Amino acid sequence: MKSPTILITNDDGIYSAGIFALWKSMKEIGNPIVVAPDQERSSISHAITIGSPLRVKKINRSEGFEGYAVSGTPADCVKLSVKSLFKKKLPDIVISGINRGGNMGTNIIYSGTVSAAAEGANFGIPSVAISLASDKTDYFDVSKKSAKKIVCNVINNGIPKGTLLNVNIPYCKQEEILGFKFTRQGNQYFKDEYIERVDPQNRKYYWIKGKVYDEDKSTDQDGKAVSENYVSISPIHFKVTNESYLVELKNRFIDEQFK
Amino acid sequence: MKSPTILITNDDGIYSAGIFALWKSMKEIGNPIVVAPDQERSSISHAITIGSPLRVKKINRSEGFEGYAVSGTPADCVKLSVKSLFKKKLPDIVISGINRGGNMGTNIIYSGTVSAAAEGANFGIPSVAISLASDKTDYFDVSKKSAKKIVCNVINNGIPKGTLLNVNIPYCKQEEILGFKFTRQGNQYFKDEYIERVDPQNRKYYWIKGKVYDEDKSTDQDGKAVSENYVSISPIHFKVTNESYLVELKNRFIDEQFK
Repeated sequence: MKSPTILITNDDGIYSAGIFALWKSMKEIGNPIVVAPDQERSSISHAITIGSPLRVKKINRSEGFEGYAVSGTPADCVKLSVKSLFKKKLPDIVISGINRGGNMGTNIIYSGTVSAAAEGANFGIPSVAISLASDKTDYFDVSKKSAKKIVCNVINNGIPKGTLLNVNIPYCKQEEILGFKFTRQGNQYFKDEYIERVDPQNRKYYWIKGKVYDEDKSTDQDGKAVSENYVSISPIHFKVTNESYLVELKNRFIDEQFK
Repeated sequence: MKSPTILITNDDGIYSAGIFALWKSMKEIGNPIVVAPDQERSSISHAITIGSPLRVKKINRSEGFEGYAVSGTPADCVKLSVKSLFKKKLPDIVISGINRGGNMGTNIIYSGTVSAAAEGANFGIPSVAISLASDKTDYFDVSKKSAKKIVCNVINNGIPKGTLLNVNIPYCKQEEILGFKFTRQGNQYFKDEYIERVDPQNRKYYWIKGKVYDEDKSTDQDGKAVSENYVSISPIHFKVTNESYLVELKNRFIDEQFK
């Protein structure tokens, strides 16, 4: 494909370091269009805005970066791009990121970054989420190189409709990377607690505080791959039926009995 | 179990008709505790609040209904209940609803109602989401009766950790109900468009407008069951790996080659 159109979004917002790095790398292989939230929307999951209208504002950053800042969520950005802003010429691929922090295991479900790619996948557009497993935003070399390689590959090979690639990048130097690994969703999760505080008006409030745990010992899961300096690529889709338990339920109950 | 503790939440907010109906029905079989968003948070998906603190306010409605209004999302309500408000005595079950509108097929991913139950399931608490497949909020008899039956059943039999029951209720009279049906997630979806308008300051804004479609002809899916006047019960979990495509990717690429 000659100069593919690449829709770029994220959940850290259009002014983040990660989306700028992604735009720079995508510029080398195609025609990037940036449509991203006008502010940080971390942990917004697959939320969409239905109770209020969306605003769109064209913005510019340095080095010729331009994009559309949307007053909504990452999933809104993709929906609005596909159904309105660019409906006459749909993007060839959607890429979401580079997220500040990994999106692996149980935490996938909270991620706005992954959800934007899931929205793209639902439209049948090949989609990729890309996250840097660190809260640092000072080193994107591995992420940029990986993004280019994966996007070129996806454009050539496609992805089944409804499935996206969830990519997680180890925070290490390029020369320390051991390669790519195709993985499944593991069990990494946040162990949360709430810090209770009292405001100057003597009223309580609660702050969430979480720490990542990963007790999954299987070798082919996302968290393990990243911890071993592999770039983790998980094909995921939101087909959520628990098929084996469905069979069990059908066997256990005769439907009529349960009426 | 003698008088189970039942955590009730939703995404339509603590002042909705649906949560009041659910509270009334749960009162007949156990000890309900209501912890729900202080305002409507429809289509908020599995969002959690990390960038600002949460407030909790005790509120009262008629007939002795009392509950905690939380300045956050449905998933926040469950997290905060489990990790802070009621951490000394966890609920025996989480039930989320009764939602205004069905949550079936592809639309499950957008639902705050389902996400609250998913959050409960992640904590290992048996959890149920219950939605009335209508935008009307004037008739909850079937929903209330079904909720009681399902909750009693779940308390006796349990649910595998991480799985929840996604229940959808047809909008019809009790005598028209054909029974319960165990179903899988179908393909029901919203076909969205954006209505472009101009405000009095001459600036554009975009409203989303959606219409439900269901082109899935398989007999055992959620949308089909509800359309035939069955109460649909789908066991779902967020194990999102596309296993068959993972195998395909592993076979197609040698990891090193992709480095």
